[in-house]
Amino acid sequence: MSYLVVIEFLAVIVSSIYGVLLAARKGMDVVGVFAVAFAVAFGGGTLRDLFLDRTPLFWIGNPHYPMITLGIAILSGLILRFVHRIKPLLLVPDALGMALFTLTGTGFAIEAGVNPFIAAVLGVITGTFGGVLGDVICNEVPTLFQPSPLNATCSFAGAWIYWGALQFEIPGGWALLAGGAVIVTLRLASVKWNWCFPGIREPSPSSKS
Amino acid sequence: MSYLVVIEFLAVIVSSIYGVLLAARKGMDVVGVFAVAFAVAFGGGTLRDLFLDRTPLFWIGNPHYPMITLGIAILSGLILRFVHRIKPLLLVPDALGMALFTLTGTGFAIEAGVNPFIAAVLGVITGTFGGVLGDVICNEVPTLFQPSPLNATCSFAGAWIYWGALQFEIPGGWALLAGGAVIVTLRLASVKWNWCFPGIREPSPSSKS
Amino acid sequence: MSYLVVIEFLAVIVSSIYGVLLAARKGMDVVGVFAVAFAVAFGGGTLRDLFLDRTPLFWIGNPHYPMITLGIAILSGLILRFVHRIKPLLLVPDALGMALFTLTGTGFAIEAGVNPFIAAVLGVITGTFGGVLGDVICNEVPTLFQPSPLNATCSFAGAWIYWGALQFEIPGGWALLAGGAVIVTLRLASVKWNWCFPGIREPSPSSKS
Repeated sequence: MSYLVVIEFLAVIVSSIYGVLLAARKGMDVVGVFAVAFAVAFGGGTLRDLFLDRTPLFWIGNPHYPMITLGIAILSGLILRFVHRIKPLLLVPDALGMALFTLTGTGFAIEAGVNPFIAAVLGVITGTFGGVLGDVICNEVPTLFQPSPLNATCSFAGAWIYWGALQFEIPGGWALLAGGAVIVTLRLASVKWNWCFPGIREPSPSSKS
Repeated sequence: MSYLVVIEFLAVIVSSIYGVLLAARKGMDVVGVFAVAFAVAFGGGTLRDLFLDRTPLFWIGNPHYPMITLGIAILSGLILRFVHRIKPLLLVPDALGMALFTLTGTGFAIEAGVNPFIAAVLGVITGTFGGVLGDVICNEVPTLFQPSPLNATCSFAGAWIYWGALQFEIPGGWALLAGGAVIVTLRLASVKWNWCFPGIREPSPSSKS
Repeated sequence: MSYLVVIEFLAVIVSSIYGVLLAARKGMDVVGVFAVAFAVAFGGGTLRDLFLDRTPLFWIGNPHYPMITLGIAILSGLILRFVHRIKPLLLVPDALGMALFTLTGTGFAIEAGVNPFIAAVLGVITGTFGGVLGDVICNEVPTLFQPSPLNATCSFAGAWIYWGALQFEIPGGWALLAGGAVIVTLRLASVKWNWCFPGIREPSPSSKS
């Protein structure tokens, strides 16, 4: 399904930009910036390909993908020294990258004939794992596991919208657009208004209690 | 060997409960609780399946497994708010989950015709990796690598007992029971009496020395 | 190509020694020492085999490799209690292990018909992932991602030298020697004279800014 290939191509570009911004905030050198961008852009899709037994891995079969990431890392070295505050730039590539990779994870899983619940879980893993890796490498507590706006939830909801749209025989491109729009909108709204689910109980008094 | 499938089913249930308790202690929301439970219940077996090249992954081929985990996560949201201290509840599901997953790792490796030492190592990886992942997501130092009761050692010993029992042509079900009993007993005893091996030398004076 | 098998064998021995030293500094017990040595010696090559879809994994197909690692871990328990300072011993096995595993990653990727840029990236992943895992288990900030001497860069440069030498029809053994010498020399020199690339910009004033 050629739409998914386009989505994946866009996901790589957007996630590479997100990874580059993440690493640049930390003052990393160009190798570190490429390493973070590579992990963010290819981490989720690599798990997806390993879990679905797709060979070759998408970035081995499409060697221009990591080269694009390298190009973005080098370009950023020229541009980002003139940018004062990076944090406000992170939000949109983060939401968009998560949306696009969620769709590729769900889509390739559906193509592989997987149960829809599992396809949605694979979408969430594909959409969020790159960001988790980037946070870990940058030595941050992964935002995915912080009491924070609805990260995995947005991804999960969009995966079901996409699957549902396909059930109603909505053409693939429109189904992808619907799922992606839901993820990006939900994610941006949850950050803006700080939507959270409540904890299922109070945390224990000490982390060791 | 149908015994291993039963063991795996029990391992998923027990490990899901362990993961739910781990996340609830941290005051996570229901999505976080499901994420931790999923990682604990499927992390070790996923590595096992990838390392042994078993396809599809056990939770993709058995899509009801993650649904059971989801059900346990949702149920816990109703029950655990009335539970005062969670820590004492962690011990038994931890030991039991480790035992059951160790047996599936060792058992599937033996079925795949792997050398017994490697089968035992795969058992340890399968039995302990889920717990490590859960600790990492909950931002704890993984207990596997702390100077603490004999975690991996119990798992390793039980794997050899199971393999040895099979060599003496003890039927599969009894061999599994023997290996599992050794792991659970050793683990509970080592926690109760705080059994540890000594370090091979004193740690260096500073972590940078 | 039989040279690569020899290189891999040496890489396992050298990396096992590095992992044992790393764990001994932390005062771990013999099980912890084996776990760290196993992760350091087999982490990078396992990713390489999974990414290139090579089966069985090299340490499952060569079960004597993990046994050698176990032997080194046990031996170290006898020897290292008499060693006063471990840190100075870490440098050479670190550089050598990275070089040898980089060459196996690049070499097997070239054999699999992969694009040279991707082969070099796979070399870097194979060469560095074991060390990252070891640092994570020992609860250190991975040196790969610290503003520190040129770790991944040395590995990347050596992978290209090796590939370039093969293009000029230099025999496999000499090409491996050239690539390995470049990695080890660059790495030791970058540690000695503390070579670093500059950050692409100042880090943001606070890690949250």
